[in-house]
Amino acid sequence: MEYHVDGELVPAEEASVNVRDRGFMYGDAAFETLRAYGGEVFAWDAHADRLERTCETLGFARAIPPRADLRERIAETLAANDLTDAYVKLSISRGVQAGKLTPDPAVDPTIVVIVDSLPRGGIDGDPVWDDPATVRTVETRKIPDAALPADTKTHNYLNGILARLELQQEASGDPADEALLLDTDGYLAEGATSNLFFVADGVVHTPTTDQPILPGVTRSIVLDLAREEGLPVETGPYERDDLLAVDEAFLTNTTWELRPVGAVDGESIGGGPITRLLSRLYDRRVERSCYE
Amino acid sequence: MEYHVDGELVPAEEASVNVRDRGFMYGDAAFETLRAYGGEVFAWDAHADRLERTCETLGFARAIPPRADLRERIAETLAANDLTDAYVKLSISRGVQAGKLTPDPAVDPTIVVIVDSLPRGGIDGDPVWDDPATVRTVETRKIPDAALPADTKTHNYLNGILARLELQQEASGDPADEALLLDTDGYLAEGATSNLFFVADGVVHTPTTDQPILPGVTRSIVLDLAREEGLPVETGPYERDDLLAVDEAFLTNTTWELRPVGAVDGESIGGGPITRLLSRLYDRRVERSCYE
Repeated sequence: MEYHVDGELVPAEEASVNVRDRGFMYGDAAFETLRAYGGEVFAWDAHADRLERTCETLGFARAIPPRADLRERIAETLAANDLTDAYVKLSISRGVQAGKLTPDPAVDPTIVVIVDSLPRGGIDGDPVWDDPATVRTVETRKIPDAALPADTKTHNYLNGILARLELQQEASGDPADEALLLDTDGYLAEGATSNLFFVADGVVHTPTTDQPILPGVTRSIVLDLAREEGLPVETGPYERDDLLAVDEAFLTNTTWELRPVGAVDGESIGGGPITRLLSRLYDRRVERSCYE
Repeated sequence: MEYHVDGELVPAEEASVNVRDRGFMYGDAAFETLRAYGGEVFAWDAHADRLERTCETLGFARAIPPRADLRERIAETLAANDLTDAYVKLSISRGVQAGKLTPDPAVDPTIVVIVDSLPRGGIDGDPVWDDPATVRTVETRKIPDAALPADTKTHNYLNGILARLELQQEASGDPADEALLLDTDGYLAEGATSNLFFVADGVVHTPTTDQPILPGVTRSIVLDLAREEGLPVETGPYERDDLLAVDEAFLTNTTWELRPVGAVDGESIGGGPITRLLSRLYDRRVERSCYE
């Protein structure tokens, strides 16, 4: 495998950043996880928009190259690895700077593209997950917006890691697939790497972005698809007990697409007709965007 | 300059970690900032204790080498650079792992030692800072313990970086030296890289560790010194308005030692006799630990 680091394709085992890169020292970096289907990056504009927003919040948006340049680096990395269906992670760190914590406004960013093969899924393929997700609510709370804006996707990911580590402490020895975090007010926020949806009485629900959640690209597409299909959609603050009584639930992220929730805290939920309908609509959206 | 990476001394410009190191990908790493005086690392046990605690919280304490091994890496790095008075940063990341966010319990950590020359300060020298610190309270709030325990010192440092970035937005064009963060309940927490002390009516105050603050090694030594000297000491929750009315204020961290606060939000405070007394006592503690 070859990765793209700072403008060069390099063998994966040699792909590195300096130990004084602020991405390593402080997690001072923005990233996006993307998928390529049939050689095409899906929903590129939405991801590029969010990446630019993250860099804006981190104060180095002016230092990053145009999105066409970023997209070209991804294309080169996919081509070098002969990949068409792939996982792609694009990271931009503030790079190496003199001094300690205070950022220098003059930024020479470090740009990294990591790829991996990922089966296509979609209408004729298999999803990347084997089974509906088992989910557990955890003690770790989402970081509030006032401390770190949730709509920035950064290399500061310990909040989600601590949530996932809680799953490994399960007495059963059979850790759940996803940790569901509440916000500090006790409302359902999101999974460590996924957004939450559920269906109750025919209405599609997902936590509102007024809460500290990452506005997922897949989440946004699913909301659009549901509205286009005429399904009633509501966003809002929800409690854990609301979730246990629903008809269907699923998680979304770029890699999983839509993944049904089999159980939350041991209570069975499962997918259902609306989850399946939205999954098919999502598959068609991918087909149209990347294959036609 | 040579740094220590994964057991080897390497030239600083070649000192690197793989882009798939979790320290880079997620800030999934513990660190300590230390000072060496006269070739001796100051307060090593306190730093090693905290480092082990951080690794415990991150779930990889069992994978890290004994502290004597870590100390030896620091000694080798200082010797290779012919440094006796130095800044030292010791980092331990979870290393490269297969898979995505969920940590693998089998950890091969990446251990990095970075050093830099730092003047000795102390009784006969000059402090590393030129002037009392100008401080501003910022909008960014400390991450609550429920989201990321404040007593872990990790490479997830964007909370402090966002706080420091706020200082650069000052209309005056003359950014303050340190950003003072409140917690999400609105109480004074700490600086981006320092703990806060103040003196009012002869009593030494500092925010309590019941709040989300890093229990600084220098903070702890200063509290010990004050108590040994018979000074009245109180810890508690304090509000910004409490701070503006005090007689003296200072910040502590390993690099600055004790640094008087010249002003907070434009209101003059300054050091004073108790700050000077504690600084002298700290200098003597350093002298005794590292030079006698």
